[in-house]
Amino acid sequence: MNKTIAVLGAGSWGSALATVLFENGHDVRLWTRDPHQAEEITRNHTNKHYLPEFTFPEGVTASIDLKEVIADADIILFVIPTKGIRQTAEQVNALLDHKVTVVHASKGLEADTHKRISTILEEEIEPDRMTGIVALSGPSHAEEVVAKDLTTITAASENIEAARLTQNIFLNDYFRVYTNEDIIGVEIGAALKNIIALGAGVIAGLGFGDNAKAGLVTRGLAEISRLGIELGADPLTFMGLSGVGDLIVTCTSPHSRNWRAGYQIGKGKKVETILDEMGMVVEGISTTKAAYELAQEFNIEMPITEAIYNVVYNDSDVKYVILNLMQREGKSE
Amino acid sequence: MNKTIAVLGAGSWGSALATVLFENGHDVRLWTRDPHQAEEITRNHTNKHYLPEFTFPEGVTASIDLKEVIADADIILFVIPTKGIRQTAEQVNALLDHKVTVVHASKGLEADTHKRISTILEEEIEPDRMTGIVALSGPSHAEEVVAKDLTTITAASENIEAARLTQNIFLNDYFRVYTNEDIIGVEIGAALKNIIALGAGVIAGLGFGDNAKAGLVTRGLAEISRLGIELGADPLTFMGLSGVGDLIVTCTSPHSRNWRAGYQIGKGKKVETILDEMGMVVEGISTTKAAYELAQEFNIEMPITEAIYNVVYNDSDVKYVILNLMQREGKSE
Repeated sequence: MNKTIAVLGAGSWGSALATVLFENGHDVRLWTRDPHQAEEITRNHTNKHYLPEFTFPEGVTASIDLKEVIADADIILFVIPTKGIRQTAEQVNALLDHKVTVVHASKGLEADTHKRISTILEEEIEPDRMTGIVALSGPSHAEEVVAKDLTTITAASENIEAARLTQNIFLNDYFRVYTNEDIIGVEIGAALKNIIALGAGVIAGLGFGDNAKAGLVTRGLAEISRLGIELGADPLTFMGLSGVGDLIVTCTSPHSRNWRAGYQIGKGKKVETILDEMGMVVEGISTTKAAYELAQEFNIEMPITEAIYNVVYNDSDVKYVILNLMQREGKSE
Repeated sequence: MNKTIAVLGAGSWGSALATVLFENGHDVRLWTRDPHQAEEITRNHTNKHYLPEFTFPEGVTASIDLKEVIADADIILFVIPTKGIRQTAEQVNALLDHKVTVVHASKGLEADTHKRISTILEEEIEPDRMTGIVALSGPSHAEEVVAKDLTTITAASENIEAARLTQNIFLNDYFRVYTNEDIIGVEIGAALKNIIALGAGVIAGLGFGDNAKAGLVTRGLAEISRLGIELGADPLTFMGLSGVGDLIVTCTSPHSRNWRAGYQIGKGKKVETILDEMGMVVEGISTTKAAYELAQEFNIEMPITEAIYNVVYNDSDVKYVILNLMQREGKSE
């Protein structure tokens, strides 16, 4: 069944997902705020800043006109940074004149409110205009998806029909989608793994090896699970694609923006300088603050999050903080 | 407290563990069957076949005389391949005239009986000569341990005092030991991760990327957990250092022998040729058979183990089997 799909956000991940959907035979329209980027995608079929090597299949177009992009859409897919979700959802709600399924592939928690993406969407879009909200998450470098490398990913929703619809529109030979009903666990895993990716980058930057990285990621999984369970997630979700799977891909590959930012922090560079030079959103930086505040609020032990928080927000000495973290007294697991 | 420790097995891991213990101030004696290797270690302080770049600290010696090596030992540490455990334990039992704590760092299941290492040790060594049996496992390339890179690892035993003793003798600034009471889970994780490492190598050899690897490792963790839970393990153990942690380090680093063997299988090389050329034991090959038979016996779904089994033991076409495995119909997680 051919669907009309509005993809909001033309970063690397939005571009990759739009391409999968287009190749599966759907009618796909990308939305971006940047007129130059919209023209580049529509005219030249490229998106050099985000995917330098990639060429879109002809037929994928982009526009800055949100109204036009979401008109007649069966599905609206949000793939924008966390900090832009609320405002864009508000705009969508004002323009929307029919019912849609809302899917998002963003990975973060809202600053100050600490809310998950699906909660923001639920608050901003009228319930009678949505058939369900789905979170799409899992181990997936955009670069590999556009190269048609095999990728497995989770579509999570409290509304299993909406999750199945998402599975159906994306599923093909190289993009394997599993449904899951625990959207809390999937969104928490998606957001918090970026903190651990920062941490994995930091320890690599400081010169630690693979053993230390594996130890850190394992302890990271434990602290993500502790907070997630407190917030209502199913513990098993953290053993799945959006938990362990995404941690592995984000923490063991220099493709990851968060890992790269962490690596440079480990090398002693200032966070502001790193972000300026990358020119892309590094979600882990703001998620660290949200998760740190949640850990304080719920009194959850999150030593890695706390260490990264102190380095990024309190200007603590990275070497001292991380050595202290890594050598905490041996005790039971 | 200074201890006398017999380290049985002078492969890369035995050499690394002996070095940690020696540097912690213990009296350490290595045992090997190979007189040339014993002489190389004692005279030249090297072990070129297993750790080409490494020099032992002076004071670590090796001998082929088992009786001499275990005389006065407080602790006997087995670090030999799974297939040699029963015979060596039998010999130790015949020679042992005092009580010891038995620790092992081997990763496999016995062929035919499918027994865990600690079960074999329990069967072969008189209970009144042991104060406890401990399994030592976790993400730990020997090469990084001898380089004093930070490593975190689990010491598991039903006897928590024995686990704590193991923690105490190994613990230092760069070798962090956590105790755990679930020896079943730790030994199952240690053994079965090698199958998934073979699988991760195979898919890399076939040209799949990081997304596919993360998907495979995640599904591998799930099938290890399924079998482990059936055998009496605590599900949480698989989220720990000896589960996820060891999977990460073994599946994402070309340091791993099992990964390297898998990679060459993926490239189309015959298993016998690969093993001949490596000249080291690749535990995953025999563990695959044991785990496959256990899965059949308990009727547990283990698709990755089954795929690797078919490639290694039924000479099935690797590309066909793996493509089939990776593209199984999308469903719920």
